[in-house]
Amino acid sequence: MKEFDLIGRYFANGGYQRKDVLVGIGDDCAITTLAENQQLAITTDTLVAGVHFLRDAPARSVAHKAVAVNLSDLAAMGAEPAWISLSLSMPQMDEVWLAEFAEGLHELTQYYSVQLIGGDTVTGPLAMTITAQGFIPPGSELKRSAARPGDWIYVTGTLGDAGAGLAILKGEVEAQSPERDILVNRHLYPTPRVAAGTALRRTANACIDISDGMLADLGHILKASGCGATVHVDRLPISRALYQHAGAKQAYELALTSGDDYELLFTVSEEQRGNLETSLASTNVKATCIGQVTGQTGKVDLKLYDEPYQPPEKTGYQHEF
Amino acid sequence: MKEFDLIGRYFANGGYQRKDVLVGIGDDCAITTLAENQQLAITTDTLVAGVHFLRDAPARSVAHKAVAVNLSDLAAMGAEPAWISLSLSMPQMDEVWLAEFAEGLHELTQYYSVQLIGGDTVTGPLAMTITAQGFIPPGSELKRSAARPGDWIYVTGTLGDAGAGLAILKGEVEAQSPERDILVNRHLYPTPRVAAGTALRRTANACIDISDGMLADLGHILKASGCGATVHVDRLPISRALYQHAGAKQAYELALTSGDDYELLFTVSEEQRGNLETSLASTNVKATCIGQVTGQTGKVDLKLYDEPYQPPEKTGYQHEF
Repeated sequence: MKEFDLIGRYFANGGYQRKDVLVGIGDDCAITTLAENQQLAITTDTLVAGVHFLRDAPARSVAHKAVAVNLSDLAAMGAEPAWISLSLSMPQMDEVWLAEFAEGLHELTQYYSVQLIGGDTVTGPLAMTITAQGFIPPGSELKRSAARPGDWIYVTGTLGDAGAGLAILKGEVEAQSPERDILVNRHLYPTPRVAAGTALRRTANACIDISDGMLADLGHILKASGCGATVHVDRLPISRALYQHAGAKQAYELALTSGDDYELLFTVSEEQRGNLETSLASTNVKATCIGQVTGQTGKVDLKLYDEPYQPPEKTGYQHEF
Repeated sequence: MKEFDLIGRYFANGGYQRKDVLVGIGDDCAITTLAENQQLAITTDTLVAGVHFLRDAPARSVAHKAVAVNLSDLAAMGAEPAWISLSLSMPQMDEVWLAEFAEGLHELTQYYSVQLIGGDTVTGPLAMTITAQGFIPPGSELKRSAARPGDWIYVTGTLGDAGAGLAILKGEVEAQSPERDILVNRHLYPTPRVAAGTALRRTANACIDISDGMLADLGHILKASGCGATVHVDRLPISRALYQHAGAKQAYELALTSGDDYELLFTVSEEQRGNLETSLASTNVKATCIGQVTGQTGKVDLKLYDEPYQPPEKTGYQHEF
């Protein structure tokens, strides 16, 4: 089967169509019209089988995750998603897998009103690169470098679930239902915090999405902002499922260090703190205050009920060469 | 070495800086400002080692080609390039290779005033995906579907050189200097026809870049436009080096079917034909008329000195699954 037929059959039809896309899949480039008085946010993420997702992960989950991690990056900047391009590398043609992958991709893009505008398919190891683009009003971007000493540190949702789900899927730990399903689904089908990201434009200072683990991603903000932080481990938002499954001690460790939760971590000044609840009211997303930014550059104090807490050795993963 | 240091050291510094990039490499997204009264053109291309470039190709050439094929897609639409994102997959850290790759990338982006605004690095087989973006005034895009019966068919530059260069590099044929160097360089360092693409906005109807081979890419235009064509093989522009190296007969075959020349193939109406020379005057690019679009949908008549010409069996490659 030829490359062009392949793209045509599975991706060109059935996806969300936006009015601002003049030329979509099938020409040398996509052509889009640009919203007035908006800036463009652009992000690229690659997922490789066996590195970023399990080789036997359902195709629908792989597509979901590939789109979600990119929308999550847009959300972390405060941008509203518009278009994605997909480059898909497959070792051989597998129509069943591809149909399920396309379905997962269309599902999520439909939900967020995002159009697939083009891409490439190549023969190679199973992997995919998505470039996502979105709009943001001038000056509203939530940069990593904008945290200030005194800012309060918040996270959306709950932490550690996806890490526990991965360990379960890898057979490293046993789990009972219904906790098993809840945690595994958090790993397979992460929710990008798109509405929360745009809602935080006026309220938050710095923002990042938690892909490497809370401590690692907080570290990126602190490094970019030249600050330190105090984090109260006992205030980390832990789901009932994770408590049930792992107990408090291991739940804290997962919440601190395991990746792929795709919650937002953001900082809010004392002055803006009162507006936070209103900002998030329409999004159905809960944010929890877990600590405060300090002026002690690069230093992170972990506390458990106000006593020093020894962090686990693993503080977030990076894809190393 | 960590992913972030890697990106920082080789890609964040030394590249072209544009005024419209507000946030570049190092945050969750890049943020750019948008030119007024312009549309955006977006394209994505992936190159895989062993499929799209030789495994032992110089890193500088790999970077050059990865950028060039994307700028070529923008050119084929008439767009002016602005920004690229790079996703790089490497089996292991190789600083010498990476330094040379970054140099090749910076060289070409500098030349075309394009800024690298972000990307991703992952562990995996050697491969790279670039997404390129550029601007084009509303209504000026050169679509594949815009060819009309009676249009004249033109190509820029010369055809078949890159294909001959690849065969030489693979050891399939012997070659003497200086032809060898000329043809090999055409394969390793293709020139995207950026200036010609924007110059053709007012003059050309349909346009495509020749990546799969002239006949295959002409076929894409004819299919999208619902037309046929007559092509005069004896009028195909062949370089002196290719004539010397391969002789007329084989040169014609390469010009018809071998890929990776990245010249533009475009159609021009009888009315606009007189403006073509003026349009291209400032670009230093020569265009040659090789035939005419007909109303016979899907039919391509090849002629050699006005006699029927039997096309070679191979009519352009596609990356098949």
